[in-house]
Amino acid sequence: MSAFLAVDWGSTHLRAWRVDERRAMSAIDLERGVASLTPGQAERVFFEEVVPALSGRGLPAIMCGMVGSTLGWRTAPYVAAPAGLRDLAAGLVEAAPGIRIVPGVKRADGSDVMRGEETQAVGWLHADASRLRGARALIMPGTHSKHVRIEDGRIAGFETYMTGELFELLRRHSTLRQPVSTWSDAAFDQGAALGREMGLTALFQARARVVSGVLAAENSESFLSGALIGAECARCESASTIIGAPALARLYARVLGGTAVRDEEGDAALAGLIHIHEAAS
Amino acid sequence: MSAFLAVDWGSTHLRAWRVDERRAMSAIDLERGVASLTPGQAERVFFEEVVPALSGRGLPAIMCGMVGSTLGWRTAPYVAAPAGLRDLAAGLVEAAPGIRIVPGVKRADGSDVMRGEETQAVGWLHADASRLRGARALIMPGTHSKHVRIEDGRIAGFETYMTGELFELLRRHSTLRQPVSTWSDAAFDQGAALGREMGLTALFQARARVVSGVLAAENSESFLSGALIGAECARCESASTIIGAPALARLYARVLGGTAVRDEEGDAALAGLIHIHEAAS
Repeated sequence: MSAFLAVDWGSTHLRAWRVDERRAMSAIDLERGVASLTPGQAERVFFEEVVPALSGRGLPAIMCGMVGSTLGWRTAPYVAAPAGLRDLAAGLVEAAPGIRIVPGVKRADGSDVMRGEETQAVGWLHADASRLRGARALIMPGTHSKHVRIEDGRIAGFETYMTGELFELLRRHSTLRQPVSTWSDAAFDQGAALGREMGLTALFQARARVVSGVLAAENSESFLSGALIGAECARCESASTIIGAPALARLYARVLGGTAVRDEEGDAALAGLIHIHEAAS
Repeated sequence: MSAFLAVDWGSTHLRAWRVDERRAMSAIDLERGVASLTPGQAERVFFEEVVPALSGRGLPAIMCGMVGSTLGWRTAPYVAAPAGLRDLAAGLVEAAPGIRIVPGVKRADGSDVMRGEETQAVGWLHADASRLRGARALIMPGTHSKHVRIEDGRIAGFETYMTGELFELLRRHSTLRQPVSTWSDAAFDQGAALGREMGLTALFQARARVVSGVLAAENSESFLSGALIGAECARCESASTIIGAPALARLYARVLGGTAVRDEEGDAALAGLIHIHEAAS
């Protein structure tokens, strides 16, 4: 397979690789997410910053993430779940000659959407042929966590939880804010147990327990993190596979218990981009 | 009963009444919540602004709300649930000669607290002797909504939901923010049904449905309001009594269905302050 560029272009970051013979030979990570771009700027960022940095002049490229939204370079309409590798490859949209964008996935009724996670899911699924059979549950923690149900190698359904965004809003801008924070696994675990059991009402306990003297103020943020992740995972299967940054994946594994599996294989988005590029070639 | 001043002093507002013969004869509402005060300022606000405005020089006073917190005038330690009128009267703390503050209520294990709502609950309970027998469920919507279980006229247990604060954070500062908002009961009802059914994961649908074209952007905020109130009320008894501002109480009554009762009697905080003052006299 000849060389190409693979780009994971989200709201806050742009990560790109030059891929030769299915391996990433060089990589860049820019704070050039689509949320910071003006209309028309994506194309310039790509040709003036990404291509030269990866010696990619004239190479084809494949991109996933918010670059395919109305804020990005060109809109790649959502394909409806169930959707797998072939559906994504068939839904590629050309932004410029040889430059293609992976579509997001929506629920058929339009009640939930993803952009970028479909590529990670495909990357994880196609790394091992045994994953392409039967039912799987994936958890992708983040600003907007995705819980994805896989059936026979395709995304069958999913839900979004605003866990990461709620955590940032609450710890920075709410009455739960504390001037000093020290991480505590014990406070996290306590919050997580309550979040799983009682959902949203666990959040205010991050303050109430401090006010009444049964939680140290500097551990309140750990408790809040646990309460949010616990509430998110109240209905999760403990046999889920967690795909995400190691620090966050560790917390989800604590909440889900011993049978949750953290995926340690490396970059699922890059793997997915390689698979979709091949499937469409 | 001789005249006194009754003060409901919360985080953002101060409301005060001059009470003669159990009736409020004059009232003021100031944007002088304790969150805006510097240390020591509460006493000056009371004697220099509240007392003159109500011709209350030399009268005794009773206060409830955040004025009894560490941010307020003087800390009135929480009494543990179960707690009723006599427990609150016995827990009054003197801030200055003749000026007393109603204590808040905490769960015995310190996992949740209230300040102000205990006084509203007592006001509602003692307005009708039949309410003092048996089990009741009260819902007090607001920035931090309280769900209160009453047993034989006392607060037996309660939970706090950060619904109002989450709504403000999400509509102003999150990725759910929309430039234009038009209220829609239909969008509210749709959000509420999903919030009751699926909890937190309904929140992101306020964005996903807009992005995928099945919800009008200007109705997203109504959907979000419904999703939050629905999630709050997922476990509520439909026979609850709702005590709160009419516009908000209406929304909760929509979510809880036909058997929810909105309390229309007027100011529960004032009624509670009068009862506690009498019980302690």
